[in-house]
Amino acid sequence: MNIKLNLEFDGTNYCGWQIQPDKPTVQGKLKEAIFKATGEDSMPKGSSRTDSGVHAKGFVCNFISDTTIPVEKLPHALNCHLPDDIIIKSAETVDDGFIASGSAVKKTYRYTFDNGEFSDVFLSRFAWHFKYPLNIEKMREAAAHFIGTHDFLGFAASGFTVKTTVRTIYQLKIEQSGNIITMDITGDGFLYNMVRIIAGTLAYVGSGKIEPQDIPAIIKSRDRTRAGITAPAKGLCLREVFY
Amino acid sequence: MNIKLNLEFDGTNYCGWQIQPDKPTVQGKLKEAIFKATGEDSMPKGSSRTDSGVHAKGFVCNFISDTTIPVEKLPHALNCHLPDDIIIKSAETVDDGFIASGSAVKKTYRYTFDNGEFSDVFLSRFAWHFKYPLNIEKMREAAAHFIGTHDFLGFAASGFTVKTTVRTIYQLKIEQSGNIITMDITGDGFLYNMVRIIAGTLAYVGSGKIEPQDIPAIIKSRDRTRAGITAPAKGLCLREVFY
Repeated sequence: MNIKLNLEFDGTNYCGWQIQPDKPTVQGKLKEAIFKATGEDSMPKGSSRTDSGVHAKGFVCNFISDTTIPVEKLPHALNCHLPDDIIIKSAETVDDGFIASGSAVKKTYRYTFDNGEFSDVFLSRFAWHFKYPLNIEKMREAAAHFIGTHDFLGFAASGFTVKTTVRTIYQLKIEQSGNIITMDITGDGFLYNMVRIIAGTLAYVGSGKIEPQDIPAIIKSRDRTRAGITAPAKGLCLREVFY
Repeated sequence: MNIKLNLEFDGTNYCGWQIQPDKPTVQGKLKEAIFKATGEDSMPKGSSRTDSGVHAKGFVCNFISDTTIPVEKLPHALNCHLPDDIIIKSAETVDDGFIASGSAVKKTYRYTFDNGEFSDVFLSRFAWHFKYPLNIEKMREAAAHFIGTHDFLGFAASGFTVKTTVRTIYQLKIEQSGNIITMDITGDGFLYNMVRIIAGTLAYVGSGKIEPQDIPAIIKSRDRTRAGITAPAKGLCLREVFY
């Protein structure tokens, strides 16, 4: 049967999701846990290849199994064999055709900025401490220009192979609570480092280095050097994958 | 001059505030940072002796210094020499008579319970994962019985020397947000492990092991064995010290 898992992880201590020899990865830890719990050598396939240090609140993966463990007991059975920073929250059987990555229709990521003068020690693993004051109204104005279908080549790191660099952003919401600013972005898919480059660009807008009205031209230029920096991985969290 | 510092720290990697030979402590790290920043060998004196693994959002300490660094620049100067999990948030000069511990008139601690079926990985360093459902109304009813002046001998770990075990609790507030339950407690002072024992007792009340109306008799008994367990250190955070 085909089993779909919903999990969360603190990515601080992992070299991302994807399994790599001799490196701690979430996929690697989960594969081990599946083997220990079920005796099966089955590779879990993830909804996304999260980068080193990136977190997830609603990561999805699937794996093929003939286990006799009832599916509703699987989270507990797997969590017993997982480190504290990876937690399976639910499991269900799905159609054979379900593939966590291929079947996804949209994803939401959150990027968290800590805009205090001093960094908040309780968020230091989960937020980018950006100490220069951020103008949230300007960030919102800039955010609106990302909505829609665009060629995001200028917002992608090199070293990827994709058929097209056109992506659709459905929502880009900036919220503030005290010193914490969050950017929630939902799209049909994201290029390599795209969310972090958008976050870095919005930080440049918020701190006055880029004007909101320049965003359309920057997108149109397809020139990586015109966008902002790639914001640090630790501020990024995959929140939800939609099917 | 006498300098008062306000700091926060993630206590996960420290054996508490108080300096101890060959062990990582917050006081030890701060003493080193003071030496590196000012060249002075001055011992910072803390408002509280927090236990190993306990956190602080508003810890206060003071130290004597003749530094020429302007006091408003001191946080930055010290933070340069502190690890990421300790942050000085403000510094000010105070009267010679000010002593961070002796001058405190009340303190607020927060205890955080993660009451989800599975622990939240983003709170695993800062909350006690208590997976049995907690009845918040019963916890609030029980909390009300702690308010006031009582002999809290039954809510203290052994191994302390104090003149009196009578303490006054001004406020004990239980709040819930999703799976997260917080207990904010303000008192004129707390005995050794007292906040953690009250938290453990309220967890017993919330899960039905102790009834709210039994609390007055448990307090009155002055018998440690009648209260609940000592809740884990990681859920505890010193929020504020009042002078």
